[in-house]
Amino acid sequence: MASDPGKDSCIFCKIVAGDAPVSTVYEDDRTLVLMTIGPVTPGHAMVIPKEHFAFMNELDEELGAHLFRITQRVAQAIRHSGLECEGINLFLADGKAAFQDVFHFHLHVFPRFQGDSFSISADWSNKPPRAELDRTAGLVRVAYERLYPNDIKA
Amino acid sequence: MASDPGKDSCIFCKIVAGDAPVSTVYEDDRTLVLMTIGPVTPGHAMVIPKEHFAFMNELDEELGAHLFRITQRVAQAIRHSGLECEGINLFLADGKAAFQDVFHFHLHVFPRFQGDSFSISADWSNKPPRAELDRTAGLVRVAYERLYPNDIKA
Repeated sequence: MASDPGKDSCIFCKIVAGDAPVSTVYEDDRTLVLMTIGPVTPGHAMVIPKEHFAFMNELDEELGAHLFRITQRVAQAIRHSGLECEGINLFLADGKAAFQDVFHFHLHVFPRFQGDSFSISADWSNKPPRAELDRTAGLVRVAYERLYPNDIKA
Repeated sequence: MASDPGKDSCIFCKIVAGDAPVSTVYEDDRTLVLMTIGPVTPGHAMVIPKEHFAFMNELDEELGAHLFRITQRVAQAIRHSGLECEGINLFLADGKAAFQDVFHFHLHVFPRFQGDSFSISADWSNKPPRAELDRTAGLVRVAYERLYPNDIKA
């Protein structure tokens, strides 16, 4: 994993501290929702924790859950904002290999509409046989059960 | 928003009911984590609610928060699975215009590594002036405050 350059040089920490310009959608004790300066579509927001965490696995689960509640609300607000919006994408880049650019956790929320410029691509021709999917699921399942022997209470 | 064809024809509902094959990573009363049959990379999982909800705004916030807790754990499990993984992407397609294909909420979690086939593209040249970002933020903020007059407790 790319190393975190640290909060002293983090643009989001500067914004949280009031030392850089920001267009704010929402704010609470732990959370800031801001417009990205490079929007995929108008209304492209980012949900960030105020505290500096570079990667998803540094967020405690309660903070992650809180950020997702806010994210659901922001998505709904975008749908009701009057901005062009026929759908919503959430996107998180966790790690440089996953296209993370700012090393302070940020969950992208952006409106989509027919004819916008956003696209994704991959080698969709890969359709593994069930035995391979089972094997892959097994590897993840074993790691999950080792890391989290206790269920989250429903 | 594209209409939901309904749970009677929903492949994820069939899987949850035990009527279609599945490679399972994790399961609890409300949640199923399964391998997608068209993985971007090996280990590509989807976190779904067992109950049929077509769109994100149909999920109550507690269920959304629960799904995100599980998602954080699945991401961490993928990192520790032995599968090739230098980073993680989360992706949610909410609505047909946002590339939703199966109309049962599903949050994609997939490992990334140098040289994999996944990419995103958009017109990144669009850098709106601050006044426009402020205006856009204002539209979303007003909608947010109208929809959610009370804060989520920290």
